[in-house]
Amino acid sequence: MGQKIMAYDFYWISGSTNVWRAMLTLEYKGIAYNSHRLDSSQKDQKKPEFLAMNPRGQVPVLKCGETLIHESVAIMAFLEREQPEPALFGRTSAETGLVWQRIMEVVNYTRDPVEQGVVFPLFRGEADTHPDRLKAATIAAIDSVRWIEELLERQEYLAGDLPTAADINAMPIIQMLARVGKRSDAIGLGLGLDDLASSHPGISAWLQRLEQLPGYEAAYPPHWRT
Amino acid sequence: MGQKIMAYDFYWISGSTNVWRAMLTLEYKGIAYNSHRLDSSQKDQKKPEFLAMNPRGQVPVLKCGETLIHESVAIMAFLEREQPEPALFGRTSAETGLVWQRIMEVVNYTRDPVEQGVVFPLFRGEADTHPDRLKAATIAAIDSVRWIEELLERQEYLAGDLPTAADINAMPIIQMLARVGKRSDAIGLGLGLDDLASSHPGISAWLQRLEQLPGYEAAYPPHWRT
Repeated sequence: MGQKIMAYDFYWISGSTNVWRAMLTLEYKGIAYNSHRLDSSQKDQKKPEFLAMNPRGQVPVLKCGETLIHESVAIMAFLEREQPEPALFGRTSAETGLVWQRIMEVVNYTRDPVEQGVVFPLFRGEADTHPDRLKAATIAAIDSVRWIEELLERQEYLAGDLPTAADINAMPIIQMLARVGKRSDAIGLGLGLDDLASSHPGISAWLQRLEQLPGYEAAYPPHWRT
Repeated sequence: MGQKIMAYDFYWISGSTNVWRAMLTLEYKGIAYNSHRLDSSQKDQKKPEFLAMNPRGQVPVLKCGETLIHESVAIMAFLEREQPEPALFGRTSAETGLVWQRIMEVVNYTRDPVEQGVVFPLFRGEADTHPDRLKAATIAAIDSVRWIEELLERQEYLAGDLPTAADINAMPIIQMLARVGKRSDAIGLGLGLDDLASSHPGISAWLQRLEQLPGYEAAYPPHWRT
Protein backbone atom coordinates (compact mmCIF):
# COMPACT_ATOMS: atom_id res chain seq x y z
CA MET A 1 0.00 0.00 0.00
CA GLY A 2 3.06 2.30 -0.05
CA GLN A 3 3.36 5.14 -2.49
CA LYS A 4 3.97 3.99 -6.02
CA ILE A 5 7.20 4.96 -7.69
CA MET A 6 5.49 5.91 -10.94
CA ALA A 7 5.71 9.60 -11.72
CA TYR A 8 2.67 11.83 -11.88
CA ASP A 9 2.50 14.97 -13.96
CA PHE A 10 -0.13 17.50 -12.94
CA TYR A 11 -1.19 20.37 -15.24
CA TRP A 12 -2.95 23.26 -13.58
CA ILE A 13 -3.84 26.95 -13.45
CA SER A 14 -3.89 29.00 -10.27
CA GLY A 15 -7.36 29.87 -8.98
CA SER A 16 -9.37 27.21 -10.77
CA THR A 17 -11.76 25.46 -8.39
CA ASN A 18 -11.44 22.31 -10.49
CA VAL A 19 -7.67 22.38 -10.14
CA TRP A 20 -7.86 23.03 -6.43
CA ARG A 21 -9.78 19.88 -5.51
CA ALA A 22 -7.50 17.67 -7.57
CA MET A 23 -4.33 19.27 -6.25
CA LEU A 24 -5.49 19.10 -2.65
CA THR A 25 -6.21 15.41 -3.15
CA LEU A 26 -2.65 14.88 -4.36
CA GLU A 27 -1.25 16.86 -1.44
CA TYR A 28 -3.53 15.32 1.20
CA LYS A 29 -2.48 11.86 0.11
CA GLY A 30 1.17 12.90 0.06
CA ILE A 31 1.59 11.90 -3.56
CA ALA A 32 4.66 13.39 -5.22
CA TYR A 33 4.06 14.90 -8.64
CA ASN A 34 5.70 17.03 -11.27
CA SER A 35 3.97 20.38 -11.26
CA HIS A 36 3.16 22.02 -14.59
CA ARG A 37 1.59 25.39 -13.94
CA LEU A 38 -0.05 26.83 -17.06
CA ASP A 39 -0.56 30.51 -17.70
CA SER A 40 -4.18 31.19 -18.59
CA SER A 41 -3.32 34.74 -19.69
CA GLN A 42 -1.23 33.08 -22.42
CA LYS A 43 -4.05 30.57 -23.13
CA ASP A 44 -1.61 27.74 -22.48
CA GLN A 45 -4.54 25.39 -22.02
CA LYS A 46 -5.65 25.99 -25.62
CA LYS A 47 -2.24 25.29 -27.18
CA PRO A 48 -1.75 22.17 -29.30
CA GLU A 49 0.50 20.38 -26.83
CA PHE A 50 -2.12 20.71 -24.10
CA LEU A 51 -5.08 19.93 -26.37
CA ALA A 52 -3.31 16.70 -27.23
CA MET A 53 -3.79 15.72 -23.58
CA ASN A 54 -7.29 17.17 -23.12
CA PRO A 55 -9.15 18.18 -26.27
CA ARG A 56 -11.53 20.20 -24.10
CA GLY A 57 -8.68 22.58 -23.30
CA GLN A 58 -9.33 22.56 -19.58
CA VAL A 59 -7.33 21.99 -16.46
CA PRO A 60 -6.65 19.98 -14.40
CA VAL A 61 -5.06 17.10 -16.24
CA LEU A 62 -3.18 14.32 -14.48
CA LYS A 63 -0.74 12.19 -16.42
CA CYS A 64 0.65 8.94 -15.14
CA GLY A 65 2.60 6.90 -17.66
CA GLU A 66 0.24 6.35 -20.58
CA THR A 67 -2.80 7.27 -18.48
CA LEU A 68 -4.30 10.72 -18.90
CA ILE A 69 -7.24 11.78 -16.74
CA HIS A 70 -9.21 15.00 -16.88
CA GLU A 71 -12.33 16.12 -14.97
CA SER A 72 -11.33 16.91 -11.40
CA VAL A 73 -13.73 14.51 -9.68
CA ALA A 74 -12.42 11.69 -11.87
CA ILE A 75 -8.86 12.57 -10.86
CA MET A 76 -9.90 12.29 -7.20
CA ALA A 77 -11.43 8.85 -7.80
CA PHE A 78 -8.35 7.76 -9.77
CA LEU A 79 -5.99 8.84 -6.99
CA GLU A 80 -8.05 6.97 -4.39
CA ARG A 81 -7.47 3.79 -6.38
CA GLU A 82 -3.81 4.58 -6.95
CA GLN A 83 -3.12 5.27 -3.29
CA PRO A 84 -6.00 4.24 -1.02
CA GLU A 85 -4.52 5.71 2.17
CA PRO A 86 -5.42 8.06 3.68
CA ALA A 87 -8.91 7.19 2.50
CA LEU A 88 -11.05 9.99 1.09
CA PHE A 89 -14.02 7.98 -0.21
CA GLY A 90 -15.03 6.11 2.93
CA ARG A 91 -14.17 2.70 4.27
CA THR A 92 -17.56 1.00 4.05
CA SER A 93 -20.01 0.91 1.19
CA ALA A 94 -22.41 3.11 3.17
CA GLU A 95 -19.65 5.69 3.69
CA THR A 96 -18.64 5.52 0.02
CA GLY A 97 -22.25 5.96 -1.05
CA LEU A 98 -22.66 9.01 1.16
CA VAL A 99 -19.41 10.61 -0.01
CA TRP A 100 -20.55 10.24 -3.62
CA GLN A 101 -24.01 11.50 -2.74
CA ARG A 102 -22.53 14.67 -1.27
CA ILE A 103 -20.24 15.12 -4.29
CA MET A 104 -23.14 14.75 -6.71
CA GLU A 105 -25.39 17.01 -4.63
CA VAL A 106 -22.79 19.76 -4.95
CA VAL A 107 -22.40 19.07 -8.68
CA ASN A 108 -26.14 18.93 -9.28
CA TYR A 109 -27.48 21.67 -7.02
CA THR A 110 -24.73 24.05 -5.87
CA ARG A 111 -21.84 24.27 -8.33
CA ASP A 112 -23.65 25.84 -11.27
CA PRO A 113 -25.69 28.39 -9.30
CA VAL A 114 -22.43 29.55 -7.69
CA GLU A 115 -20.00 29.38 -10.61
CA GLN A 116 -22.17 29.85 -13.70
CA GLY A 117 -24.58 32.11 -11.86
CA VAL A 118 -22.26 34.42 -9.93
CA VAL A 119 -18.53 33.77 -10.20
CA PHE A 120 -18.09 33.73 -13.97
CA PRO A 121 -20.50 36.65 -14.57
CA LEU A 122 -18.53 38.73 -12.05
CA PHE A 123 -15.30 37.83 -13.86
CA ARG A 124 -16.95 38.98 -17.10
CA GLY A 125 -17.79 42.35 -15.59
CA GLU A 126 -21.54 41.77 -15.40
CA ALA A 127 -21.83 43.74 -12.17
CA ASP A 128 -21.84 46.71 -14.54
CA THR A 129 -23.60 45.27 -17.57
CA HIS A 130 -26.25 43.01 -15.97
CA PRO A 131 -26.63 44.11 -12.33
CA ASP A 132 -30.22 42.92 -11.85
CA ARG A 133 -29.52 39.49 -13.29
CA LEU A 134 -26.45 39.19 -11.07
CA LYS A 135 -28.43 40.16 -7.98
CA ALA A 136 -31.04 37.49 -8.72
CA ALA A 137 -28.34 34.91 -9.41
CA THR A 138 -26.66 35.76 -6.11
CA ILE A 139 -29.87 35.08 -4.21
CA ALA A 140 -30.09 31.73 -6.00
CA ALA A 141 -26.45 30.95 -5.24
CA ILE A 142 -26.83 31.70 -1.54
CA ASP A 143 -29.97 29.56 -1.54
CA SER A 144 -28.00 26.73 -3.15
CA VAL A 145 -25.50 26.62 -0.28
CA ARG A 146 -28.14 26.60 2.46
CA TRP A 147 -28.27 22.79 2.64
CA ILE A 148 -24.49 22.78 3.18
CA GLU A 149 -24.82 25.28 6.02
CA GLU A 150 -27.63 23.26 7.63
CA LEU A 151 -25.59 20.08 7.38
CA LEU A 152 -22.50 21.70 8.87
CA GLU A 153 -24.42 23.09 11.81
CA ARG A 154 -24.96 19.52 13.00
CA GLN A 155 -21.84 17.68 11.81
CA GLU A 156 -18.20 18.55 11.24
CA TYR A 157 -17.82 17.43 7.64
CA LEU A 158 -20.12 16.87 4.69
CA ALA A 159 -20.14 13.10 4.98
CA GLY A 160 -19.87 12.82 8.76
CA ASP A 161 -17.19 13.19 11.39
CA LEU A 162 -14.17 12.90 9.14
CA PRO A 163 -12.97 14.88 6.14
CA THR A 164 -13.58 13.15 2.81
CA ALA A 165 -13.56 13.80 -0.89
CA ALA A 166 -16.99 15.39 -0.38
CA ASP A 167 -15.38 18.25 1.53
CA ILE A 168 -12.48 18.60 -0.89
CA ASN A 169 -14.95 18.69 -3.78
CA ALA A 170 -17.14 21.40 -2.25
CA MET A 171 -14.61 23.62 -0.49
CA PRO A 172 -13.09 25.41 -3.53
CA ILE A 173 -16.57 26.38 -4.76
CA ILE A 174 -17.46 27.92 -1.40
CA GLN A 175 -14.10 29.64 -1.08
CA MET A 176 -14.50 31.09 -4.56
CA LEU A 177 -17.96 32.44 -3.74
CA ALA A 178 -16.63 34.10 -0.59
CA ARG A 179 -13.67 35.52 -2.50
CA VAL A 180 -15.61 37.09 -5.36
CA GLY A 181 -17.99 38.52 -2.78
CA LYS A 182 -15.15 40.73 -1.57
CA ARG A 183 -14.61 42.32 -4.99
CA SER A 184 -15.40 46.01 -5.03
CA ASP A 185 -18.01 45.56 -7.78
CA ALA A 186 -19.77 42.85 -5.77
CA ILE A 187 -19.77 45.02 -2.66
CA GLY A 188 -20.84 48.05 -4.67
CA LEU A 189 -23.84 46.14 -5.94
CA GLY A 190 -24.76 45.10 -2.39
CA LEU A 191 -24.67 41.40 -3.23
CA GLY A 192 -24.19 40.54 0.43
CA LEU A 193 -21.52 37.95 -0.26
CA ASP A 194 -18.75 39.82 1.57
CA ASP A 195 -20.11 38.60 4.89
CA LEU A 196 -20.76 35.04 3.66
CA ALA A 197 -18.69 33.55 6.49
CA SER A 198 -20.38 35.46 9.30
CA SER A 199 -23.84 34.74 7.91
CA HIS A 200 -23.00 31.03 7.62
CA PRO A 201 -21.36 29.94 10.89
CA GLY A 202 -21.44 26.24 10.04
CA ILE A 203 -19.63 26.80 6.76
CA SER A 204 -17.23 29.24 8.42
CA ALA A 205 -16.16 26.72 11.09
CA TRP A 206 -15.88 23.99 8.45
CA LEU A 207 -13.56 26.14 6.31
CA GLN A 208 -11.37 26.73 9.34
CA ARG A 209 -11.22 22.98 9.99
CA LEU A 210 -10.31 22.31 6.37
CA GLU A 211 -7.45 24.81 6.56
CA GLN A 212 -5.82 22.36 8.97
CA LEU A 213 -5.87 19.50 6.45
CA PRO A 214 -2.48 18.09 5.46
CA GLY A 215 -1.53 19.69 2.15
CA TYR A 216 -3.95 22.61 2.46
CA GLU A 217 -1.24 25.26 2.27
CA ALA A 218 0.53 23.59 -0.66
CA ALA A 219 -2.67 23.41 -2.70
CA TYR A 220 -3.91 26.92 -1.91
CA PRO A 221 -4.13 28.97 -5.15
CA PRO A 222 -0.78 30.80 -5.19
CA HIS A 223 -2.04 33.98 -6.85
CA TRP A 224 -4.69 34.35 -4.16
CA ARG A 225 -1.93 35.11 -1.65
CA THR A 226 -0.86 38.27 -3.38
CA MET B 1 -18.14 -11.98 -2.84
CA GLY B 2 -21.62 -13.51 -3.17
CA GLN B 3 -24.75 -11.43 -3.05
CA LYS B 4 -25.49 -10.03 0.38
CA ILE B 5 -28.62 -11.13 2.17
CA MET B 6 -29.52 -7.61 3.25
CA ALA B 7 -32.67 -6.27 1.65
CA TYR B 8 -32.63 -3.32 -0.70
CA ASP B 9 -35.60 -1.04 -1.23
CA PHE B 10 -35.62 0.98 -4.44
CA TYR B 11 -37.94 3.94 -4.95
CA TRP B 12 -38.50 5.02 -8.53
CA ILE B 13 -40.68 6.64 -11.17
CA SER B 14 -41.03 5.29 -14.69
CA GLY B 15 -39.27 7.31 -17.38
CA SER B 16 -36.76 9.15 -15.19
CA THR B 17 -33.27 8.99 -16.66
CA ASN B 18 -31.86 9.16 -13.13
CA VAL B 19 -33.93 6.17 -12.08
CA TRP B 20 -32.99 4.24 -15.16
CA ARG B 21 -29.24 4.23 -14.58
CA ALA B 22 -29.61 3.19 -10.94
CA MET B 23 -32.15 0.47 -11.73
CA LEU B 24 -30.07 -0.91 -14.58
CA THR B 25 -27.10 -1.09 -12.21
CA LEU B 26 -29.18 -3.15 -9.76
CA GLU B 27 -30.41 -5.42 -12.54
CA TYR B 28 -27.03 -5.76 -14.26
CA LYS B 29 -25.44 -6.84 -11.02
CA GLY B 30 -28.30 -9.22 -10.33
CA ILE B 31 -29.10 -7.58 -7.00
CA ALA B 32 -32.55 -8.44 -5.65
CA TYR B 33 -34.56 -5.48 -4.38
CA ASN B 34 -38.01 -4.50 -3.24
CA SER B 35 -39.47 -2.29 -5.93
CA HIS B 36 -41.43 0.79 -4.87
CA ARG B 37 -42.79 2.48 -7.96
CA LEU B 38 -44.04 6.00 -7.23
CA ASP B 39 -46.71 7.80 -9.23
CA SER B 40 -45.46 11.20 -10.31
CA SER B 41 -48.99 12.21 -11.38
CA GLN B 42 -49.91 11.89 -7.70
CA LYS B 43 -46.71 13.71 -6.69
CA ASP B 44 -45.76 10.73 -4.53
CA GLN B 45 -42.18 11.99 -4.46
CA LYS B 46 -43.29 15.17 -2.68
CA LYS B 47 -45.26 13.41 0.08
CA PRO B 48 -43.96 13.47 3.66
CA GLU B 49 -43.02 9.80 3.82
CA PHE B 50 -40.82 10.18 0.76
CA LEU B 51 -39.39 13.54 1.78
CA ALA B 52 -38.29 11.86 5.01
CA MET B 53 -36.00 9.72 2.86
CA ASN B 54 -34.92 12.42 0.41
CA PRO B 55 -35.73 16.02 1.34
CA ARG B 56 -35.09 16.99 -2.28
CA GLY B 57 -38.19 15.05 -3.29
CA GLN B 58 -36.49 13.26 -6.13
CA VAL B 59 -36.08 9.70 -7.28
CA PRO B 60 -34.26 7.40 -7.24
CA VAL B 61 -33.68 6.53 -3.61
CA LEU B 62 -32.05 3.31 -2.48
CA LYS B 63 -32.57 2.09 1.07
CA CYS B 64 -30.50 -0.63 2.65
CA GLY B 65 -31.00 -1.06 6.38
CA GLU B 66 -30.27 2.33 7.92
CA THR B 67 -28.48 3.54 4.81
CA LEU B 68 -30.32 5.86 2.44
CA ILE B 69 -28.68 7.00 -0.78
CA HIS B 70 -29.99 9.43 -3.35
CA GLU B 71 -28.36 10.87 -6.49
CA SER B 72 -28.24 8.17 -9.14
CA VAL B 73 -24.49 8.24 -9.73
CA ALA B 74 -23.93 7.83 -5.99
CA ILE B 75 -26.24 4.81 -5.98
CA MET B 76 -24.15 3.27 -8.75
CA ALA B 77 -20.93 3.83 -6.76
CA PHE B 78 -22.58 2.45 -3.61
CA LEU B 79 -23.73 -0.70 -5.40
CA GLU B 80 -20.26 -1.27 -6.82
CA ARG B 81 -18.93 -1.37 -3.26
CA GLU B 82 -21.82 -3.52 -2.04
CA GLN B 83 -21.42 -6.09 -4.79
CA PRO B 84 -18.21 -5.62 -6.77
CA GLU B 85 -18.99 -8.25 -9.40
CA PRO B 86 -19.70 -7.88 -12.23
CA ALA B 87 -17.47 -4.81 -12.11
CA LEU B 88 -18.82 -1.59 -13.61
CA PHE B 89 -16.10 0.84 -12.51
CA GLY B 90 -13.03 -0.84 -13.97
CA ARG B 91 -10.51 -3.24 -12.50
CA THR B 92 -7.40 -1.06 -12.50
CA SER B 93 -6.97 2.48 -11.29
CA ALA B 94 -6.52 3.65 -14.89
CA GLU B 95 -9.81 2.00 -15.87
CA THR B 96 -11.57 3.45 -12.81
CA GLY B 97 -10.23 6.90 -13.61
CA LEU B 98 -11.45 6.69 -17.19
CA VAL B 99 -14.92 5.45 -16.18
CA TRP B 100 -15.29 8.40 -13.82
CA GLN B 101 -13.92 10.77 -16.43
CA ARG B 102 -16.59 9.64 -18.90
CA ILE B 103 -19.31 9.92 -16.24
CA MET B 104 -18.26 13.44 -15.33
CA GLU B 105 -17.89 14.46 -18.98
CA VAL B 106 -21.53 13.48 -19.53
CA VAL B 107 -22.57 15.29 -16.33
CA ASN B 108 -20.54 18.38 -17.16
CA TYR B 109 -21.02 18.75 -20.90
CA THR B 110 -23.94 16.67 -22.20
CA ARG B 111 -26.63 16.07 -19.57
CA ASP B 112 -27.82 19.65 -19.10
CA PRO B 113 -27.83 20.67 -22.78
CA VAL B 114 -29.96 17.58 -23.46
CA GLU B 115 -32.27 17.52 -20.43
CA GLN B 116 -32.49 21.15 -19.32
CA GLY B 117 -32.12 22.44 -22.86
CA VAL B 118 -34.48 20.17 -24.82
CA VAL B 119 -36.22 17.38 -22.90
CA PHE B 120 -37.79 19.35 -20.06
CA PRO B 121 -38.79 22.31 -22.28
CA LEU B 122 -40.54 19.88 -24.65
CA PHE B 123 -42.36 18.35 -21.67
CA ARG B 124 -43.44 21.86 -20.68
CA GLY B 125 -44.91 22.50 -24.11
CA GLU B 126 -42.27 24.99 -25.20
CA ALA B 127 -42.41 23.76 -28.80
CA ASP B 128 -45.44 26.03 -28.98
CA THR B 129 -44.46 28.80 -26.59
CA HIS B 130 -40.71 29.16 -27.26
CA PRO B 131 -40.00 27.52 -30.64
CA ASP B 132 -36.92 29.56 -31.52
CA ARG B 133 -35.29 28.98 -28.15
CA LEU B 134 -36.01 25.27 -28.44
CA LYS B 135 -34.50 25.10 -31.90
CA ALA B 136 -31.30 26.77 -30.68
CA ALA B 137 -31.18 24.47 -27.65
CA THR B 138 -31.59 21.43 -29.90
CA ILE B 139 -28.59 22.48 -31.96
CA ALA B 140 -26.61 22.81 -28.72
CA ALA B 141 -27.84 19.43 -27.47
CA ILE B 142 -26.86 17.65 -30.67
CA ASP B 143 -23.50 19.39 -30.48
CA SER B 144 -23.09 18.15 -26.90
CA VAL B 145 -23.40 14.50 -27.99
CA ARG B 146 -20.90 14.77 -30.83
CA TRP B 147 -17.95 13.71 -28.68
CA ILE B 148 -19.90 10.58 -27.71
CA GLU B 149 -20.55 9.78 -31.36
CA GLU B 150 -16.89 10.33 -32.25
CA LEU B 151 -15.79 8.09 -29.40
CA LEU B 152 -18.22 5.33 -30.34
CA GLU B 153 -17.10 5.34 -33.95
CA ARG B 154 -13.73 4.03 -32.78
CA GLN B 155 -14.55 1.94 -29.72
CA GLU B 156 -17.48 -0.17 -28.57
CA TYR B 157 -18.15 1.45 -25.19
CA LEU B 158 -17.47 4.81 -23.60
CA ALA B 159 -14.56 3.60 -21.49
CA GLY B 160 -13.16 1.02 -23.90
CA ASP B 161 -14.03 -2.48 -25.04
CA LEU B 162 -16.33 -3.43 -22.17
CA PRO B 163 -19.56 -1.93 -20.83
CA THR B 164 -19.11 0.09 -17.66
CA ALA B 165 -20.95 2.53 -15.43
CA ALA B 166 -19.97 5.19 -17.99
CA ASP B 167 -22.33 3.61 -20.52
CA ILE B 168 -25.10 3.03 -18.00
CA ASN B 169 -24.79 6.65 -16.91
CA ALA B 170 -25.01 8.08 -20.42
CA MET B 171 -27.47 5.74 -22.11
CA PRO B 172 -30.74 6.97 -20.52
CA ILE B 173 -29.91 10.57 -21.50
CA ILE B 174 -29.33 9.61 -25.13
CA GLN B 175 -32.43 7.38 -25.21
CA MET B 176 -34.51 10.22 -23.80
CA LEU B 177 -33.25 12.65 -26.43
CA ALA B 178 -34.11 10.18 -29.19
CA ARG B 179 -37.53 9.53 -27.66
CA VAL B 180 -38.62 13.16 -27.30
CA GLY B 181 -37.39 13.74 -30.84
CA LYS B 182 -40.21 11.50 -32.06
CA ARG B 183 -42.91 13.64 -30.43
CA SER B 184 -45.21 15.24 -32.96
CA ASP B 185 -44.37 18.73 -31.66
CA ALA B 186 -40.64 18.07 -32.03
CA ILE B 187 -41.14 16.76 -35.56
CA GLY B 188 -43.49 19.61 -36.39
CA LEU B 189 -40.81 22.08 -35.38
CA GLY B 190 -38.25 20.31 -37.56
CA LEU B 191 -35.87 19.74 -34.68
CA GLY B 192 -34.19 16.91 -36.55
CA LEU B 193 -34.05 14.64 -33.53
CA ASP B 194 -36.36 11.98 -34.98
CA ASP B 195 -33.49 10.62 -37.04
CA LEU B 196 -30.92 10.89 -34.24
CA ALA B 197 -29.99 7.21 -34.57
CA SER B 198 -29.45 7.26 -38.34
CA SER B 199 -27.44 10.49 -38.14
CA HIS B 200 -25.28 9.03 -35.34
CA PRO B 201 -24.24 5.52 -36.43
CA GLY B 202 -21.77 5.07 -33.58
CA ILE B 203 -24.37 5.90 -30.95
CA SER B 204 -26.96 3.78 -32.76
CA ALA B 205 -24.76 0.66 -32.74
CA TRP B 206 -23.83 1.31 -29.11
CA LEU B 207 -27.49 1.51 -28.07
CA GLN B 208 -28.10 -1.81 -29.80
CA ARG B 209 -25.20 -3.38 -27.92
CA LEU B 210 -26.49 -2.00 -24.62
CA GLU B 211 -29.91 -3.54 -25.27
CA GLN B 212 -28.16 -6.89 -24.89
CA LEU B 213 -26.91 -6.11 -21.37
CA PRO B 214 -28.15 -8.39 -18.60
CA GLY B 215 -31.05 -6.63 -16.93
CA TYR B 216 -31.73 -4.23 -19.78
CA GLU B 217 -35.30 -5.37 -20.33
CA ALA B 218 -36.13 -5.36 -16.60
CA ALA B 219 -34.90 -1.78 -16.18
CA TYR B 220 -36.50 -0.38 -19.33
CA PRO B 221 -39.06 2.31 -18.39
CA PRO B 222 -42.34 0.37 -18.27
CA HIS B 223 -44.56 3.18 -19.49
CA TRP B 224 -42.36 3.60 -22.58
CA ARG B 225 -43.58 0.21 -23.81
CA THR B 226 -47.18 1.33 -24.19
